[in-house]
Amino acid sequence: MTQFYAPETPDRVKNATKGLHLITALTPNGRKAHIYLEELKETYGLPFTISLIDLDTNEQKKPWFLRLNPNGRIPLLIDNTTTPHPHVVMESSAILLYLFHQVDHSQQFGFADPLQQSQLLQWLVFWGASGQMVQGQWNYFRRNQVENDHAKKRFHDELLRVYHVLEAHLAGRYTDPGLGREYLADQGKGKYTLADINAWPWVRSFRAVGLEEEELDRLPALAAWVDRVGGRAAVQRGAFGEAYDEGLSPELVIRT
Amino acid sequence: MTQFYAPETPDRVKNATKGLHLITALTPNGRKAHIYLEELKETYGLPFTISLIDLDTNEQKKPWFLRLNPNGRIPLLIDNTTTPHPHVVMESSAILLYLFHQVDHSQQFGFADPLQQSQLLQWLVFWGASGQMVQGQWNYFRRNQVENDHAKKRFHDELLRVYHVLEAHLAGRYTDPGLGREYLADQGKGKYTLADINAWPWVRSFRAVGLEEEELDRLPALAAWVDRVGGRAAVQRGAFGEAYDEGLSPELVIRT
Repeated sequence: MTQFYAPETPDRVKNATKGLHLITALTPNGRKAHIYLEELKETYGLPFTISLIDLDTNEQKKPWFLRLNPNGRIPLLIDNTTTPHPHVVMESSAILLYLFHQVDHSQQFGFADPLQQSQLLQWLVFWGASGQMVQGQWNYFRRNQVENDHAKKRFHDELLRVYHVLEAHLAGRYTDPGLGREYLADQGKGKYTLADINAWPWVRSFRAVGLEEEELDRLPALAAWVDRVGGRAAVQRGAFGEAYDEGLSPELVIRT
Repeated sequence: MTQFYAPETPDRVKNATKGLHLITALTPNGRKAHIYLEELKETYGLPFTISLIDLDTNEQKKPWFLRLNPNGRIPLLIDNTTTPHPHVVMESSAILLYLFHQVDHSQQFGFADPLQQSQLLQWLVFWGASGQMVQGQWNYFRRNQVENDHAKKRFHDELLRVYHVLEAHLAGRYTDPGLGREYLADQGKGKYTLADINAWPWVRSFRAVGLEEEELDRLPALAAWVDRVGGRAAVQRGAFGEAYDEGLSPELVIRT
């Protein structure tokens, strides 16, 4: 077995030898991890440390990072409590699931029941596979005006379709019209879970991604959900807390 | 609680009241479910039935289907063994995980150990969130030549990047150069799991998606993995078996 860390791995990462350490930045996927860690801190007193990456430096594409995550993306969770070496988790949705299984022992943000947990996983996967990439592509093409009307229309329409899947689910459109639900997973009104944490950091900005007023007006259940989830203290800390902002917390930034 | 099925739900679906029933079609995501069901049939003798949808009829966008899956997509798994009503699972990756937890009790295609299972989930999520959508968009833009050179280049480059993440992982490029691995999850050479089943139906056609010869030549570990996974009997049956082909099995097609 070769050395676990490369020689040039920043000391802040190498020396975080106790508990959970998150390498992150202020992106939607980073915020998923921040929010769940904040919820777990509030509920269980979970301690954790973080390192911030300034994505403009492309630190996450350097060999020391690729050795930990060949995909070269943040967030990246390092669990220093495992043996014989730390356990590393890439992919924001997989980080949420890891924290759920390792830390959330009374299932505050998920379920012990396999059928309920299956519903959570469906909405977690739905957003990860069909939602976030579309919203990212739409943002890319609407901001880069290079002969891309076709691509713009394509991702605009698909993003709206995906938002309406969430709207229909939250409003009970195909199942219990008028009843509606408050969160993505569980029966009845639903329960706040990883499925919400996984989608919210992206969907929270749905009013600011350049959709028309009348397009937004047709998403009332989604709008209410965005505000409902956003009203939680841990969500606010995870999404906007200065600890996660490289400008406000320069001492947490790693550079090689 | 309203009626579980809509009145116009096809009899073939409504009357499949025993065990697992899959509504599917011959797409990469459909094939994920076919392959795992075939593996489970071979390993545990798992019985299941299927209904096929001709996607050209848009049956999956009709109200009876949206009531089961508001995303209007196949594959869709219906488990008739649960009470008080069948448990429905949308999203191909979530179907794999559901089958793993409900059927694969000796973890033949995954792990009992949470750290190993975490690695499986990372590669499952990686392909679902970063791989399949990119390959799908690349296929769309290279086939629809409408002022989309920018979009074509974008998805071509990103697809190649994603293939190289898999190549690096399989070849051990950043960790154990020269050692390499046979499957995506687990230590050492790896173990064939859901993570492979989740990616293979897409990546299997990497030689036919219009990449240059010299681009393909730089993916030897990926090529070997595609052939290795494709060599399994259950994979062949799941991907190409006539039971899943609406043309060869018209009696399984549902239409309303």
